[in-house]
Amino acid sequence: MGYFITFEGVEGSGKSTQIRFLADELISRNLATTLTREPGGCPIADQIRAILLDADNSAMSAMSELMLYAAARAQHVNEVVAPALADGNIVLCDRFCDATVAYQSYGRGLDRAVIDTLNKHACSGISPDLTILIDCDPQVGLARARRRIELSSGPREERFELETVAFHQRVRSGYNNLAKTEPQRFVIIDGADTIENIASKIRDAVLSRIPEGIRAIR
Amino acid sequence: MGYFITFEGVEGSGKSTQIRFLADELISRNLATTLTREPGGCPIADQIRAILLDADNSAMSAMSELMLYAAARAQHVNEVVAPALADGNIVLCDRFCDATVAYQSYGRGLDRAVIDTLNKHACSGISPDLTILIDCDPQVGLARARRRIELSSGPREERFELETVAFHQRVRSGYNNLAKTEPQRFVIIDGADTIENIASKIRDAVLSRIPEGIRAIR
Repeated sequence: MGYFITFEGVEGSGKSTQIRFLADELISRNLATTLTREPGGCPIADQIRAILLDADNSAMSAMSELMLYAAARAQHVNEVVAPALADGNIVLCDRFCDATVAYQSYGRGLDRAVIDTLNKHACSGISPDLTILIDCDPQVGLARARRRIELSSGPREERFELETVAFHQRVRSGYNNLAKTEPQRFVIIDGADTIENIASKIRDAVLSRIPEGIRAIR
Repeated sequence: MGYFITFEGVEGSGKSTQIRFLADELISRNLATTLTREPGGCPIADQIRAILLDADNSAMSAMSELMLYAAARAQHVNEVVAPALADGNIVLCDRFCDATVAYQSYGRGLDRAVIDTLNKHACSGISPDLTILIDCDPQVGLARARRRIELSSGPREERFELETVAFHQRVRSGYNNLAKTEPQRFVIIDGADTIENIASKIRDAVLSRIPEGIRAIR
């Protein structure tokens, strides 16, 4: 079996940049690495992602949103994460179950028990070995994320960027609460540090933890 | 509160034709009537429908499929069914929770308890007052459904029509089992009868059951 690492943080925390740095580092060490993301990561989940993030879908109910995340996760775990782990890879995933707890329970106020049930059925027994939480002030992160959206010519994936700062502050404190309850799984990185320092801290945290027996790139 | 009637049956059983006949009949009697369908019935659920029925999405896992149906239902109940019932309408819905039990539990073999949990969270307490089950031999129904698809120039909504006859036979017997456990809610109509006779039986069953106090069309 491989090793499953998830990256979490509010919008604009820098996790998508940092996960790519880490993937490059692992590949340069000849370690078989799968880089993926949620929602999405395979064609059916990408179709679900398009519905979830489309800013035009402002009428979406909190329960429908939660179930769409679970549906995308079920497909992605089944089609990408589980096979890659079974093949002995390190799997790096940009957002996973913790994001659903942070956004839909702490952010939206949905019942945590319902979220845990859906996550359980979506994951068929798979859970992260290590979670890198980049802790970042939502005001700073949102400013970055909005600048990125303005510069982008792609689809308008900004439904969450349009939420209030108070919403994103609840998400941030949700992430920090999750990290407190599972200190052995979470590594918290200060997102206010420089890009280079953050990359170096993540690299050290990961290299000291990945087990023997991850397979080499074929 | 209004009155909630669902129509169920295998592909090609004639339910979509019959539900339109019934809607015309109720409207001609000046009864406020909302005609809708699942999956779909509102813009976000229609986007989910497109993913669910697209024949190109053959890689979809059974769990992801189930969660997409639940997500579409949560949005549709929240946005269409619950408000129309609260407004005193008769709501006619082409497929609802029973379809998920028949297709995903009897057809696909998913755990019934998981399906019931998802349906419960999607419906926020709303359940049909009356369910019209048009019982039809899947061989006959599939032949009809495939002919309709060949003649259609719309999107290729045929992922379920591509399933085996054995799958559709499990769905049919699932529907009949559901009807046996709730005989007071279900009316079973023989789909082998003529279109006119079926319409007349449905009209009689509905008119004898709808309560006083359904509001008139404004």
